[in-house]
Amino acid sequence: MSFERSNIARMAGYTPGEQLTGDDVIKLNTNENPYPPSPAVAAALQATDVAALRRYPPPTATAFREAAANLHEVLPQNLIPTNGGDELLRLVLTTFVDAGETVVTTQPSYSLYPVLADIQDCRLLEVPLLDDWSLPTGFVEQLNASGSKLCILVNPHAPTGQLLSVDQLTAIADGFDGILLVDEAYVDFIDPQLAYNSVPMAVERNNVLLLRTLSKGYSLAGLRFGYGIGCPELIEPMLAKTRDSYNTDLIAQRLATAAIESVDYAEESWSRVRQQREQLTAALQALGFSVTPSQTNFLLCQVPDQQTAPGLYDALKEQNILVRYFDQDRLRDKLRISIGSEEENTALLHALRALL
Amino acid sequence: MSFERSNIARMAGYTPGEQLTGDDVIKLNTNENPYPPSPAVAAALQATDVAALRRYPPPTATAFREAAANLHEVLPQNLIPTNGGDELLRLVLTTFVDAGETVVTTQPSYSLYPVLADIQDCRLLEVPLLDDWSLPTGFVEQLNASGSKLCILVNPHAPTGQLLSVDQLTAIADGFDGILLVDEAYVDFIDPQLAYNSVPMAVERNNVLLLRTLSKGYSLAGLRFGYGIGCPELIEPMLAKTRDSYNTDLIAQRLATAAIESVDYAEESWSRVRQQREQLTAALQALGFSVTPSQTNFLLCQVPDQQTAPGLYDALKEQNILVRYFDQDRLRDKLRISIGSEEENTALLHALRALL
Repeated sequence: MSFERSNIARMAGYTPGEQLTGDDVIKLNTNENPYPPSPAVAAALQATDVAALRRYPPPTATAFREAAANLHEVLPQNLIPTNGGDELLRLVLTTFVDAGETVVTTQPSYSLYPVLADIQDCRLLEVPLLDDWSLPTGFVEQLNASGSKLCILVNPHAPTGQLLSVDQLTAIADGFDGILLVDEAYVDFIDPQLAYNSVPMAVERNNVLLLRTLSKGYSLAGLRFGYGIGCPELIEPMLAKTRDSYNTDLIAQRLATAAIESVDYAEESWSRVRQQREQLTAALQALGFSVTPSQTNFLLCQVPDQQTAPGLYDALKEQNILVRYFDQDRLRDKLRISIGSEEENTALLHALRALL
Repeated sequence: MSFERSNIARMAGYTPGEQLTGDDVIKLNTNENPYPPSPAVAAALQATDVAALRRYPPPTATAFREAAANLHEVLPQNLIPTNGGDELLRLVLTTFVDAGETVVTTQPSYSLYPVLADIQDCRLLEVPLLDDWSLPTGFVEQLNASGSKLCILVNPHAPTGQLLSVDQLTAIADGFDGILLVDEAYVDFIDPQLAYNSVPMAVERNNVLLLRTLSKGYSLAGLRFGYGIGCPELIEPMLAKTRDSYNTDLIAQRLATAAIESVDYAEESWSRVRQQREQLTAALQALGFSVTPSQTNFLLCQVPDQQTAPGLYDALKEQNILVRYFDQDRLRDKLRISIGSEEENTALLHALRALL
């Protein structure tokens, strides 16, 4: 006999992207930042005395919370630090969505959301995006008609890279009867000329939460540090009740604080990623790929005629170049390629030219 | 209106022990190890290049898992690394206990268990321990009669320090229709002459999970690292489905691995804690305290006649000495005092002599 709950027994887990190691692997499959974290992060690591680990860490990561509140010009009460963005996603379901209630996301979207809905035994409504990956007309009405408690939108969108404006998000939030959770994992790579900032909109409303992570923008995927932003009525129950009592560790707190306090350094990497994004987009188009305009650090690319996406994926992998192929509707003719460093992108293009 | 689920809105969160800082605070309230972590942990920290944090960590902490499997002479499939022991406790409920099902613990016990039951919207059955803090006759029959899905026992017990033998645990596991989760947070401080080892019993059964943590025994409360041990049928669904996809970070994985690979160093601290435990017990008894024999790194002490526990707690706190007072049934005349270093224990005794 199995002791698993029936919903857990039925479900499949999340499949993380391949994590091949080795210095010769060009890893463009999990949207990691190609540039290293800030020297301030290295300094914070060097300054850490392991004797301090003897004691429990500050339970709510006070120093980080204050630094992040400063960065976003909100109050610490608007912020919850989490063990990666994943924890925030989970906490939102644990805290606000009962078993049997409906969670909405789009199709396609980040493949973790359906897994989290399964764990909480929720219904999942996946609203198909239109052919240009925009939201369908009447999206909010559809949310409310379905009685949904939570809508999760990743913005800029994964895996397409497309951006909803703050005005669009605001209209959804104001029309929706449930909680709008905006997963802003890739927000740092948005063109600054667009002046995207959803924070004021979020903290002024009682039904909006933003997810931020240090994994991509701050080159700290290995550190597992993220945070949520929202009104205190949404933040407080997660902070005081449903998160694990010491959810982030002392070293991660210190390094994460150093990272956001040296945001200028990270911004340099965002700018370089954007430059590479522009160049890589043009080069892939020249090779016959159809590339969706992206505000993230990855490109969704429809492969040229005469090619198949899994075929190109395999051929690249044979050359130690990893990209992401999704075996799912609407994505089977596409590859998702993370923006690498200039050298990595050059190597990718070189390999593709030889293959095509 | 509140968006909280009704069970979350009703519940209160866990209250962590006070975390006063300052070099002059003698902190005997949260059972931290008074001795520093192994030099191998410091070396692992120094050897960490922050550039490695750019990438996601090994999702299942492979190196740690193998090292811990070696230590316990089990297979990696018997182990799940977690973000502190807290995460394991939560995962067991998430994976195996449906809302409305019953979780059993004892009264008194670790105050986090009722919080976790509330989050999962479970029923909680608290079985009172007898006056000598032993389990009542017919305990297993009571578990089965209540239809309980999960029984959580902390062993050695908190806050009393008492130990159930492996034979006693085996009898419970074999008689119980549900899962027995043994929280062994304090296992490292058991007298080695007792040869306590529940691991073989646990991995041979389909309904036993053990919780281990590096917080106490390895002086790494600040690192948030723990693990579960059990049969693959119980470990696998937590590992593959319900834990956050990257639940432990790269630095914590490396430091935790270094810690258990240098277990000899930690064992030295366990031995010193036991010596201090013996001395502190005798000294407190000489002062008129009634001290429960302890196999942990803390002592549950009934205060002398003419004294009150909250009064002594307050008086000690005024002198920057923190101990733990629980305002709950059966504990209101007692203090729980963590075993400190020789200097800390001497200072405590000095302060108590002056107060009594």
